[in-house]
Amino acid sequence: MISVALMGHGVVGSGVAEILTTHKQKLFSSLGEEIYLKHILDLREFPESPLADRFTKDFEDIISDMDVRVVIETMGGLNPAYDFTKRCLKAGKSVVTSNKELVARHGAELLQIAKDNNANYLFEASVGGGIPILRPINQCLVANNVDEIAGILNGTTNFILTKMINENMAFEDALKLAQELGYAERNPEADVEGHDACRKICILASLAFGKHVYPDNVHTEGITKITLEDVEYAASWGGVIKLIGSCKPLDGGMMDIVVAPMFVPCTSQLANINDVFNGVMVRGDCTGDVVFYGKGAGMLPTASAVVADTVDCCKHLKTRKRLFWADSTEENVADYKLSKTKVYVRAIADNPADAYNMAQDIFGAISRLSRNNCPENEIAFVTEEALPYGEIMNGVKSLSKLGAEVISTIRIGNL
Amino acid sequence: MISVALMGHGVVGSGVAEILTTHKQKLFSSLGEEIYLKHILDLREFPESPLADRFTKDFEDIISDMDVRVVIETMGGLNPAYDFTKRCLKAGKSVVTSNKELVARHGAELLQIAKDNNANYLFEASVGGGIPILRPINQCLVANNVDEIAGILNGTTNFILTKMINENMAFEDALKLAQELGYAERNPEADVEGHDACRKICILASLAFGKHVYPDNVHTEGITKITLEDVEYAASWGGVIKLIGSCKPLDGGMMDIVVAPMFVPCTSQLANINDVFNGVMVRGDCTGDVVFYGKGAGMLPTASAVVADTVDCCKHLKTRKRLFWADSTEENVADYKLSKTKVYVRAIADNPADAYNMAQDIFGAISRLSRNNCPENEIAFVTEEALPYGEIMNGVKSLSKLGAEVISTIRIGNL
Repeated sequence: MISVALMGHGVVGSGVAEILTTHKQKLFSSLGEEIYLKHILDLREFPESPLADRFTKDFEDIISDMDVRVVIETMGGLNPAYDFTKRCLKAGKSVVTSNKELVARHGAELLQIAKDNNANYLFEASVGGGIPILRPINQCLVANNVDEIAGILNGTTNFILTKMINENMAFEDALKLAQELGYAERNPEADVEGHDACRKICILASLAFGKHVYPDNVHTEGITKITLEDVEYAASWGGVIKLIGSCKPLDGGMMDIVVAPMFVPCTSQLANINDVFNGVMVRGDCTGDVVFYGKGAGMLPTASAVVADTVDCCKHLKTRKRLFWADSTEENVADYKLSKTKVYVRAIADNPADAYNMAQDIFGAISRLSRNNCPENEIAFVTEEALPYGEIMNGVKSLSKLGAEVISTIRIGNL
Repeated sequence: MISVALMGHGVVGSGVAEILTTHKQKLFSSLGEEIYLKHILDLREFPESPLADRFTKDFEDIISDMDVRVVIETMGGLNPAYDFTKRCLKAGKSVVTSNKELVARHGAELLQIAKDNNANYLFEASVGGGIPILRPINQCLVANNVDEIAGILNGTTNFILTKMINENMAFEDALKLAQELGYAERNPEADVEGHDACRKICILASLAFGKHVYPDNVHTEGITKITLEDVEYAASWGGVIKLIGSCKPLDGGMMDIVVAPMFVPCTSQLANINDVFNGVMVRGDCTGDVVFYGKGAGMLPTASAVVADTVDCCKHLKTRKRLFWADSTEENVADYKLSKTKVYVRAIADNPADAYNMAQDIFGAISRLSRNNCPENEIAFVTEEALPYGEIMNGVKSLSKLGAEVISTIRIGNL
């Protein structure tokens, strides 16, 4: 019997407690030992829980219990999760978490502490909820140099975009529906501004390329400015708009990494990932494109990933798993303005023919796009050459100065 | 430094040798030790190979070398791979393989021998080529009861069906093209009759449900009878025809398992898997549907999975990985005639109105399908109720006796 403790009995934590109870036999047959959930830390009371006698409000009950070998952190947020995690790892207890904010901010430090104390720090649930993604990258694709990772990493924004694409719903209405259905929080900023997706692509990049990538260094754009007109133009181009987190290694250990809405061609596997589902594409030099798809959030999917990590920790009480990345003391993220991309541009111009000509002078060859009932003074096009994003922004300014007011610019994903 | 040996320097084997050479540094940083490819067993000569000095024609060089801890079997076929694998495992050497035929036929026995000798027997590459699928099922989804596995497991047939669907190419022409492109063998039977897909669904079922499922017990249909008319009707129904291997656990340890072409609705993730790509859907009770997508064959993708298993064996030289299933002495596959499914039926009838009425009497409620330029004497429909397959076959016979000659029947996938 292996004793574990759970910190945080919220959505994910209560799911973990449930799975450890309902799937006891399945877990036993995989591990060969019983997992005993000895303590549950939460400041609230759960008198109705079948595990009511295991609850504590005092972290000391966990840290001082030598029986407890694995601690599951599903508190979320930076504090006190950061402090508690450090103390557990320093005490040689392995820690499993679903806390993407903590891993994205302090992953390198916590992995180092785990290493120094011969413990494991696992966080499969922090990216893609129930979708296996970190372990496959770390183990199954170990014989590959990863050329790129790109994914739909946030279910809330993907739900909103799906409603906009399939049901012609305006952003505000789709957001409101997402809130009513419990997919978006009352303050939806972390989702719709791309911060949640940013944390996840940072974790993926850190793992795949071996050096911590800090979210603050990653250029992040949300979906609040996407309109139904843009959605329509994407369709006429042969694709859909998705919020993509993407990273590519550059020479010299630098990383090209961004979170932004992108045009995704319908032929891409990522184009068909709808509603609250997530999908991650990993481009390996040997495997080619591999895509992982599933529910990126929710109580039981996320808890399922947490419990799988818990089992893995229980299997590796003495040996460490090789999941590690180094800290990055210096800037390892390339300037996003130097990152080359094709781009979609929509503008208002009194003289569309002139404006198209100007656009051609500025951006080189362009492909014009059309949509039904397009106002006479609207132009839209896609550049044919990939240009550094800074140059594109300068071009947009020039276009505006010359009388074509640019309303939207959206990157074209190379997916 | 850990010494390994390679048996078979064909397509996959030479890919393994290549990756072990070209990705030496990547593998070292993951494992913390160098993998040294000490022997390569092949009856042919490879004087041009940079590893020419490592070749041997004598298995005894490998089995008697105490340095060699891991043996990679990429010979394919049952013999002598079966014998060599047994001898390696009995000598306590771990074995990694891409040989789906051997695993599907003798997996339970070989896993038992591995267990008895404290060695590992790993075969990620045997299903889905470079797609991580066995390890995710075994490790990442361990907190789930698997309710169903269904997949497109054969790239050759998927390529042929894609050409039929997207380019209106007849089966024979698509097969010929596949042969010209090297996707299909001169004798394509193992692919087009579903035997290859059958081996793979057997391996998935054995792993997910813990008891060996033997290919000979699995009802298997290929795609040779699929016509462009069927493809057209599938489109009018809102889907595509895919060759699906599927398995579901039943009560009492029995398994509902089949390989057959099926109508797959366009909304399913499996509908969008085209060309030679494979995709596997795993339906967990906690995760919901998780889908894995990528190249299911090819030198480097398959070799990449073999090398990842090799690294894993090198990490677990002393401890065993828990990858195991028991042998099944008795029949554990349910009669396919009892398996319930909806079905698509196409028939020729002198009096279509009468024939539809007869069909309704036989199958209950049906939905009629239509296609452009449909001959006047053709009918096509989908049953609305799922019926045992044996009953459907009896119904088809009745329909034929009553004057409506049935040309096609295809299952409707619940995907």
